[in-house]
Amino acid sequence: MPTDPVRLTADLIRCPSITPEEGGALTLLQSTLEAAGFTCTRVDRGGVANLFARWGAQGHARTFGFNGHTDVVPLGDPDAWSVDPFGAAEKDGYLWGRGATDMKSGVAAFVAAAFDFVTDTPPDGALILAITGDEEGPAVDGTRALLDWMEGAGEAMDVCLVGEPTCPSEMGEMMKIGRRGSMSAWITTRGVQGHAAYPHRAKNPCHALLRLLDRLAAHELDQGTDHFDASSLQVVSMDVGNPATNVIPAEARGLLNIRFNDSHSGASLSDWLRDEVAKVDAAFGTRTEMEIKISGEAFLTPPGPLSDLVARAVEAETGIAPVLSTTGGTSDARFVRDHCPVVEFGLVGETMHQVDERVRTDHVHQLKAIYTRILADYFA
Amino acid sequence: MPTDPVRLTADLIRCPSITPEEGGALTLLQSTLEAAGFTCTRVDRGGVANLFARWGAQGHARTFGFNGHTDVVPLGDPDAWSVDPFGAAEKDGYLWGRGATDMKSGVAAFVAAAFDFVTDTPPDGALILAITGDEEGPAVDGTRALLDWMEGAGEAMDVCLVGEPTCPSEMGEMMKIGRRGSMSAWITTRGVQGHAAYPHRAKNPCHALLRLLDRLAAHELDQGTDHFDASSLQVVSMDVGNPATNVIPAEARGLLNIRFNDSHSGASLSDWLRDEVAKVDAAFGTRTEMEIKISGEAFLTPPGPLSDLVARAVEAETGIAPVLSTTGGTSDARFVRDHCPVVEFGLVGETMHQVDERVRTDHVHQLKAIYTRILADYFA
Repeated sequence: MPTDPVRLTADLIRCPSITPEEGGALTLLQSTLEAAGFTCTRVDRGGVANLFARWGAQGHARTFGFNGHTDVVPLGDPDAWSVDPFGAAEKDGYLWGRGATDMKSGVAAFVAAAFDFVTDTPPDGALILAITGDEEGPAVDGTRALLDWMEGAGEAMDVCLVGEPTCPSEMGEMMKIGRRGSMSAWITTRGVQGHAAYPHRAKNPCHALLRLLDRLAAHELDQGTDHFDASSLQVVSMDVGNPATNVIPAEARGLLNIRFNDSHSGASLSDWLRDEVAKVDAAFGTRTEMEIKISGEAFLTPPGPLSDLVARAVEAETGIAPVLSTTGGTSDARFVRDHCPVVEFGLVGETMHQVDERVRTDHVHQLKAIYTRILADYFA
Repeated sequence: MPTDPVRLTADLIRCPSITPEEGGALTLLQSTLEAAGFTCTRVDRGGVANLFARWGAQGHARTFGFNGHTDVVPLGDPDAWSVDPFGAAEKDGYLWGRGATDMKSGVAAFVAAAFDFVTDTPPDGALILAITGDEEGPAVDGTRALLDWMEGAGEAMDVCLVGEPTCPSEMGEMMKIGRRGSMSAWITTRGVQGHAAYPHRAKNPCHALLRLLDRLAAHELDQGTDHFDASSLQVVSMDVGNPATNVIPAEARGLLNIRFNDSHSGASLSDWLRDEVAKVDAAFGTRTEMEIKISGEAFLTPPGPLSDLVARAVEAETGIAPVLSTTGGTSDARFVRDHCPVVEFGLVGETMHQVDERVRTDHVHQLKAIYTRILADYFA
């Protein structure tokens, strides 16, 4: 009897695995996978639970990998839910609950596909499932911990498919072949406080920060590249907190975020930001400090065998040829890409992170069928 | 025996008249002035106490006016004072206490000068003393209430001398013949909130506000006029309060203050601000609201008989020819100027509004002598 990915999703939803709680989700998957002959290892690090599972010989030349996560974001207002967020109610053609879309269904679909595939038609090859309990949190000890451990243990994937939701509204319409990079900068500009009636005795840090941020926001970073939208810089906060109209403040702060494509790197953009800061400080006589955090570099798995494989399977099962996109936020693919070609394909993400998160049950079955077809084609 | 302005200052310091408390200060002055034959009227309005005093005939063609205030700013940290702020201790050549400089000493000096002058050499003319209990507060029911009442009662000054501290560090070095105007604008720019990874679906109000404020701060309003420094616009705050690097906020706020000379008016600058707002809103698709408050218009009493009279007396008593200045903040002269020519001369303001506010006792005597000489010359 084939493994039901909707029932497995429901079982996972009933595990309250809000980051970093394991909630029983990985334990459930481990026992499921071991029943199909997977060798499982818990790769816990820094309070985060992670599960590595392999079917077939270690180091096999054809090793297909799946990556996903069982942790979920918090509930928001629990009273705003029309169902028990951990109840996994099924009604109106949907399965309801936190993680229904992001991404217990995706994990259930690839676990069910892998289970049935190795049981029904054992391939000449190997499958690796790298499943983390921290993708929604800091993500420091999640997929990175799995990849670190794999490297040390001689485990490697030849290609990897991340099962995150990738379709904006129609099943099958989009896959991801890369992601933009993301970085943020916390900027503090210091001047000399003074009376607004005597500006020549003060140095207004607001004026320097305004010039800096206006220059940065107005700068065209690029016009997009072959597979990427144009990079974008957004000033998301500026804060002084001075209610007194007659006081020039001593300090002003700004916060910005950059989503950048493959024509930049975190380092090249950091250099640019520092140059701009130096110019403005020189012009205004201010002292500006900047703390930069690079969340992820831009990366691309260029269209080729892996994206073709996934696109063919999606089109065969849905009738839609998926767009090869690099839009959106970050995902754990940014870690995997240092190890092997990686693409992402999964469900419609509309209700992810929302109250009343839910997934169409027929989509979950369809996703399992897509993953199964990918495995069959890969090992054919 | 001549009236001692230092003793009168000390008596006033002992009246705890933090705005809007009368604290006994005006009552004390009323009884003092009545003893010299002044007709006194309390002109209280809106919870503020004010004192009008006239010596001589109502409507006399030669009526000299003094204006000042007995209210004081709060103590700040009371424990930081090295003396009782209402104790009026005299030591090291100084009289110590809140209001010692700003401006119980100034009031005491012109009351003492007027008292002795009308007693010793009764002039063919009249003296008016318009003394308020709210110059440091909203100033809505202070000197304005006195001037409103005077207009209704047929009382008028031909010229007026405001006794505010005007000397930066040396006694006699500066008088004021006008003041710049002051206005503030509270600006709120609204856009559309969104995810920093999808800026095309949002409208970033920060970028619009940055452009607006940078344009305003960089604009040269003028290069100064005959008697005024250049006008100055200072952005004193900008506030969003968004800590999330991946969120474009819905709203951003800014606060600015303009000190402007006689080549502008509050109305002309308001028009300019609104034009600039409209341009930026049109360019960014944002909606910006602005609340403008005009604290005072720029005004000038051009150098002439009144400033000459004061300058001559200052130089005769101190040996220093005072600079005719329009610098600094605002004062109640901005109200008086609608009624008669007005200039300001008073003490060294170094410690005004500070902890351990104090005044050199010899300066207070010198100020009384200057005011006496001005009266003598005026009525000569």
